[in-house]
Amino acid sequence: MKVLITTVPFGDKDRTPLDLLESNGIEYVINPLNKKLTEDELIELIPSFDIIIAGTEQISDKVMEKASNLKMISRVGIGLDSVNLLAAKKRNIQVSYTPDAPAPAVAELTIGMMLMLLRSVHVSNSQMHSGEWYRFFGRRLSEVTIGIIGVGRIGQGVLEHLTGFGSPKVLVNDISIKDKIQDRYNVEWADKEEIYKQSDIVTLHLPLTAETKNMITESHLLSMKTDAIIINTSRGGIINEDDLYKVMQSGHLSGAAIDVFDFEPYKGRLRDIQRCILTT
Amino acid sequence: MKVLITTVPFGDKDRTPLDLLESNGIEYVINPLNKKLTEDELIELIPSFDIIIAGTEQISDKVMEKASNLKMISRVGIGLDSVNLLAAKKRNIQVSYTPDAPAPAVAELTIGMMLMLLRSVHVSNSQMHSGEWYRFFGRRLSEVTIGIIGVGRIGQGVLEHLTGFGSPKVLVNDISIKDKIQDRYNVEWADKEEIYKQSDIVTLHLPLTAETKNMITESHLLSMKTDAIIINTSRGGIINEDDLYKVMQSGHLSGAAIDVFDFEPYKGRLRDIQRCILTT
Repeated sequence: MKVLITTVPFGDKDRTPLDLLESNGIEYVINPLNKKLTEDELIELIPSFDIIIAGTEQISDKVMEKASNLKMISRVGIGLDSVNLLAAKKRNIQVSYTPDAPAPAVAELTIGMMLMLLRSVHVSNSQMHSGEWYRFFGRRLSEVTIGIIGVGRIGQGVLEHLTGFGSPKVLVNDISIKDKIQDRYNVEWADKEEIYKQSDIVTLHLPLTAETKNMITESHLLSMKTDAIIINTSRGGIINEDDLYKVMQSGHLSGAAIDVFDFEPYKGRLRDIQRCILTT
Repeated sequence: MKVLITTVPFGDKDRTPLDLLESNGIEYVINPLNKKLTEDELIELIPSFDIIIAGTEQISDKVMEKASNLKMISRVGIGLDSVNLLAAKKRNIQVSYTPDAPAPAVAELTIGMMLMLLRSVHVSNSQMHSGEWYRFFGRRLSEVTIGIIGVGRIGQGVLEHLTGFGSPKVLVNDISIKDKIQDRYNVEWADKEEIYKQSDIVTLHLPLTAETKNMITESHLLSMKTDAIIINTSRGGIINEDDLYKVMQSGHLSGAAIDVFDFEPYKGRLRDIQRCILTT
């Protein structure tokens, strides 16, 4: 039984998963390129493996075609948008994922991003380290309107964390109206367009689907307040990266935090926008 | 009636306080040096003024001696450590402050710092902007032990925000045991030395006094866990800056966030420590 682990880092911080594989006599190889694999790279690597412990790289029909031994795809994390599920089914390849595992961490990260962006901590920090000193005015989380698009596991985690911050006005949207959200939290249901217009912070907690790909383009970004903030910790491609660059370059939006990209490692132009927090 | 406003920026974001002064026919001057004033700079500026709207610059006996018209010191913010209160009393100079005003913002900032530091967002962001890509492992707020030294207005604000983050273990210390804190929040009282040893995050919410000045030096920092985090949003000088630099330079502590300094604008060596967040 040979396992290819493509998601990296893996077992760096905590060796338990590697120890488990070893103690069960399972041979494994950790991604030798140490980065998110392209389709071609994965095709090159995959042929001899029985199982793949996968990140968010594309596991297409073409990849599976070359993976004649493949019996299982174990996705570490949320979302199966990277896996061609029909192709897997056709070949009797089992697919699993761990949707609950990263959700709490992403919800915490999102609150951290909100607090940093409202006070320009990332810009202040960069300036201080390079010897400048300019005092920014901050806004308080409890005094802004927060728009949450997608109130599944992560969106609800964000709502839960917000309960400790007084009563910010929260607008939510999801493909299905979730009654229990409105019972449990003090939120208002709103159209996406209303959320863009009214929110000081817009945060996305959505899967990548045909409907969400390129969901936010230039016109949506321009409909947001001049000093609004946008946060994407869900999937690259939901906000059009070029449009976000263009709009922020023009001075619109006071900040953004982008944790996910079309192509990773990200090498795009948002790196030139200091008020855009970029994380891996 | 002439007012000297030394705290900067002032009225930049919201002109209301300036409008109020103007509509009451009160003449004012905003700090022409646009930075925290030294004693000598303040001595030079202050002679003709009746009132000073002050930041945290030292208003010493020597300053007041030159301020023959001074009738009032209005401190914007928390803490009167910068004002020689005996000297003011002797000269019949009124002293006021606004201890409640910044407390909620500082409490929010503190939570933001915790979330950023636990996930190395500041380091990841710097690296991404300069074209590097390294994925950090994060820790979750709900899974670490948090030590809060000082549970006055701000420390209690931090406790309140933490209620939305599951149940992190929280150790608290203050000069007086505050029963209502233990009733209201799930916290344990602990000695400062225990807090240094056991916490993953130590955050300070203390006034600057003879007891707190230089309260945390090299030995205290070294008694903390190797991957611990320290946050100071209260007053410069409570953590010895040189010792913090030395200890972090040696590789101890996984991160720090320092919002207050002995001398501002800060130009010290902590600017060389990338994993130390510095803010104005």
